[in-house]
Amino acid sequence: MTSLRRFFPILDWAGTYSRDTAANDLIAAVIVTIMLIPQSLAYALLAGLPAEVGLYASILPLVAYAIFGTSRALAVGPVAVVSLMTASAVGELAAQGTPEYLGAAIALALLSGLMLVAMGLFRLGFLANLLSHPVISGFITASGLLIAASQLKHILGIRADGQTLVEIAVALVRHIGETNLITLAIGVTATAFLFWVRKGLKPLLLSAGLHPRLADSLAKAGPVVAVAATTLAATLFSLGAQGVKLVGDIPTGLPMPTLPPLDPALWLQLAGPALLISVVGFVESVSVAQTLAAKKRQRIVPDQELIGLGAANIASAVSGGYPVTGGFARSVVNFDAGAATPAAGAFTAVGIALATLFLTPLLANLPQATLAATIIVAVLSLVDFKAIRRTYIYSRSDFAAMAATILVTLGVGVEAGITSGVVLSVLLYLFRTSRPHMAVVGIVPGTEHFRNVQRHKVLTGRTVLSVRVDESLYFANSRYLEDRILGLVAERPAIRHVVLMCPAVNVIDASAFETLEELNQRLKDSGVSLHLSEVKGPVMDRLQRTDFLEHLTGQVFLTQYQAFCTLDPQTAHVAESRNPKQAATSDLWSGPEI
Amino acid sequence: MTSLRRFFPILDWAGTYSRDTAANDLIAAVIVTIMLIPQSLAYALLAGLPAEVGLYASILPLVAYAIFGTSRALAVGPVAVVSLMTASAVGELAAQGTPEYLGAAIALALLSGLMLVAMGLFRLGFLANLLSHPVISGFITASGLLIAASQLKHILGIRADGQTLVEIAVALVRHIGETNLITLAIGVTATAFLFWVRKGLKPLLLSAGLHPRLADSLAKAGPVVAVAATTLAATLFSLGAQGVKLVGDIPTGLPMPTLPPLDPALWLQLAGPALLISVVGFVESVSVAQTLAAKKRQRIVPDQELIGLGAANIASAVSGGYPVTGGFARSVVNFDAGAATPAAGAFTAVGIALATLFLTPLLANLPQATLAATIIVAVLSLVDFKAIRRTYIYSRSDFAAMAATILVTLGVGVEAGITSGVVLSVLLYLFRTSRPHMAVVGIVPGTEHFRNVQRHKVLTGRTVLSVRVDESLYFANSRYLEDRILGLVAERPAIRHVVLMCPAVNVIDASAFETLEELNQRLKDSGVSLHLSEVKGPVMDRLQRTDFLEHLTGQVFLTQYQAFCTLDPQTAHVAESRNPKQAATSDLWSGPEI
Repeated sequence: MTSLRRFFPILDWAGTYSRDTAANDLIAAVIVTIMLIPQSLAYALLAGLPAEVGLYASILPLVAYAIFGTSRALAVGPVAVVSLMTASAVGELAAQGTPEYLGAAIALALLSGLMLVAMGLFRLGFLANLLSHPVISGFITASGLLIAASQLKHILGIRADGQTLVEIAVALVRHIGETNLITLAIGVTATAFLFWVRKGLKPLLLSAGLHPRLADSLAKAGPVVAVAATTLAATLFSLGAQGVKLVGDIPTGLPMPTLPPLDPALWLQLAGPALLISVVGFVESVSVAQTLAAKKRQRIVPDQELIGLGAANIASAVSGGYPVTGGFARSVVNFDAGAATPAAGAFTAVGIALATLFLTPLLANLPQATLAATIIVAVLSLVDFKAIRRTYIYSRSDFAAMAATILVTLGVGVEAGITSGVVLSVLLYLFRTSRPHMAVVGIVPGTEHFRNVQRHKVLTGRTVLSVRVDESLYFANSRYLEDRILGLVAERPAIRHVVLMCPAVNVIDASAFETLEELNQRLKDSGVSLHLSEVKGPVMDRLQRTDFLEHLTGQVFLTQYQAFCTLDPQTAHVAESRNPKQAATSDLWSGPEI
Repeated sequence: MTSLRRFFPILDWAGTYSRDTAANDLIAAVIVTIMLIPQSLAYALLAGLPAEVGLYASILPLVAYAIFGTSRALAVGPVAVVSLMTASAVGELAAQGTPEYLGAAIALALLSGLMLVAMGLFRLGFLANLLSHPVISGFITASGLLIAASQLKHILGIRADGQTLVEIAVALVRHIGETNLITLAIGVTATAFLFWVRKGLKPLLLSAGLHPRLADSLAKAGPVVAVAATTLAATLFSLGAQGVKLVGDIPTGLPMPTLPPLDPALWLQLAGPALLISVVGFVESVSVAQTLAAKKRQRIVPDQELIGLGAANIASAVSGGYPVTGGFARSVVNFDAGAATPAAGAFTAVGIALATLFLTPLLANLPQATLAATIIVAVLSLVDFKAIRRTYIYSRSDFAAMAATILVTLGVGVEAGITSGVVLSVLLYLFRTSRPHMAVVGIVPGTEHFRNVQRHKVLTGRTVLSVRVDESLYFANSRYLEDRILGLVAERPAIRHVVLMCPAVNVIDASAFETLEELNQRLKDSGVSLHLSEVKGPVMDRLQRTDFLEHLTGQVFLTQYQAFCTLDPQTAHVAESRNPKQAATSDLWSGPEI
């Protein structure tokens, strides 16, 4: 039962679902549905797909998430960044407008769904942690700029395709002479209106005394007004005949069950992009879900979220949709409108389904420029230049990863951009931990404590070198350990014993273990014995599984003091007799010094 | 002057070079030259190149390394694993025997040389640390098996090419009917002889009273005897006419200066393999050099070794050779034969040059089966099954990386093998550190010390939650931190204050910083304030560069005790009055508990 509840979070709330809750969910669903219709059409066009595919991706996926997802307010569906990534991945394999293009987008959704479910079942949610915040933030900013640039052609009414900012700019300049002025007028007006709705209308409504939530919801309905007004204008003045590109006939009716193409070569080509889309979508979705859950002291379960999003993507694929994830704007609207359970998502699905049945004929005369305007206004709110500055001030290495992500995304493409960001942040982290802090230590006279010789007045003997290592030993830093120790010994010809003090060593991996074996052998070759002290229990257990302790030229001491007294009794005696009261207890708190 | 010495280590020893040292170096050079001639021919054939290319790669590179390298005994030249990697990389771009194939191999050496020099100048030697020991060991074992399998066709005298173990096996089975029995006889005899020389001859010589070093050097000369004997047999009995494949005419004369093809597309395709070859070659070379240097308490400088190996590869490329690195067997022979300075390498270069001038006509009748036998015997000594078992016993996660490396190398290819090993070991490491140890702590009564509530008898208050984090906070573990804290707070409705105790936090990267900001906000949303205690100096400096401390709902305390007294004075009072002498000083050493 417990595991059934784990995999079907719907069981947590469906049993106690009341009429009051249903009413709340229904109100939220109506508001989200109205907001979602233009957005779904627009993002489908951004992905290079027919407009109705966006609607299809907003029906079954919502139902699937309602069953498997753990967030109470998350609204899944097409989102801007994932749509761009879809266009980039599929665009390399097929031409827009062909059945192969649609088939590849559906296969991408299925593959991404299967990967998300597998990651959930194997609890691999941690993979999402590889996307550091600066990399995500940089990626979203760069994607936003790229998306806005890619929509300018619709505002101008020209053809200008490109994968990178430079390609898009070149194409725009080349074709700008073909601008359709009516399209431009519609596009600019719609964009200006939507910006005003976002920045100007809400304060106005607030000052008129409206409840902040209502003001916010009205402001979010701006795109619907723009869609209705420009569609009406296009119908009245037959703008289609004057070269204004319209959405055109959208097939009426519910999505039919589809099977993506079962071509292994295609799947292999889509595997990389599908993984990136899965991880980026998951990160976006989970951070929205966590933000909303925390406001009500609710919890989401990241591994189960993977399954919920995976189910949503599989549902999208089998109903002719494309990759989806939890969107920020619509989830916040859903939350603010009072959605209490995932049932709100299911109600929204019904709303969108009704729209595909009855509303689509009305949308044939909707200018593409209007949809482009809604996209531009939506994505420019994702662009966050301040984050770049903040990161630069806070950490140069994080800034390097962020800058690489932005530049490569804009200059090469979305997949290369996010990949280089991840690789660079991992490399920078490994580089940082590859030189762990190590200190030569000596005894604080009159105590049994050992401290860094460079920072404290301590005693050391001529023949014993004691070194404290302040990090776990693993493959990236084991060579440094060996270099340092051999270097220290080479500088001190009188040394006969080296003691490695290991209180902060939580793990010694196989590479570091072999380095210790080599170090033992090399020190032996030069007449020095190697000792260990203060080795943690689990580390010691591992060492005892090997024959290392038999080869070790020295001993393993429980405490560094014991090592010191055994190996250098004279200096220990001097230390004992001097200043017995010098070190006060309050000095003895011993986090590793820096 | 110092920086000149840094880049030209030759200046360290050339000034004081004496006649005695020269004599030692000369003897070592003669021994290494004899060993190197058959080896160079054999490895060139393994790389799919004409035999003389192996000789060319053993002349100028040795001189370049003598000038720029820091090891006194390292002998550079063609080695087995790098030859296999060359064959794999170049085989994808051109057919063996074509000028394009040779050109690509030369370009690969140049590219690898430039990369190594660049890594040395930018001190990127740390990149080699990404190859963990189990990954290298697994890679070398798998490469050894792959090389031995690839040479069986020469022993049988048939054609059977393949990149993977399965491909090679299938090809061998398909063509086994075409076996040339004379070739087989030569191949099996040579292999058996070489194995006996390695395992049986040395003990025999030792029991006959020879000095161990001399016995060892004689045993290492086995390939020369095999080469001479089979060449003589092939000449006397005209075996070439009976279908035995011979090395054939090797052009006489010194290598001519060459320019690799300057084709950007080719260079781009070779960039990945060149990086892998550079890193693998560097790791192999540096570990040999370190082993030998440590025996005489000498030091090598890894970053300068990069420059030395880079110079050797550039020298190889400009003289018609292919990628080289420091070899294990020949370096040990060089060391044991008494080489005192890198001049021994330069003398060896003269020896090989003399051989290409005068010896090559004698080698035309050398059977390829003999060279295959020397390769098989050499590489099987690299295969180390015991290391697999040792790693399995020591660490399951290291074993997983090792097994992946071996299986992918054998089943897919060398580049995919080493790449998957590196990726998997990095992922496993990040996974391990993505769940840092965190402990809820309470005060030890009668002291100012705080300990894990699950391991010690400590006091905690109802409204204050104190959590100690035992690792630096960075992108891979920041989500876990947030999850854990929010989870702990969700379980304890009475909590009003959370104190993060940070004595072991050396770094807070930008991701973790934003997580702290979010955590602060989310806790605020649920009416809980966030405090920090015992923050290290450099971490605090960073936080002060931001406005985090202004937003922080709580305070930053110098000590956890201070935090406790301020936030929960009642419990602090109780703790003070109880068992004032309970905790003895010796208990107070405080490495983080596990």
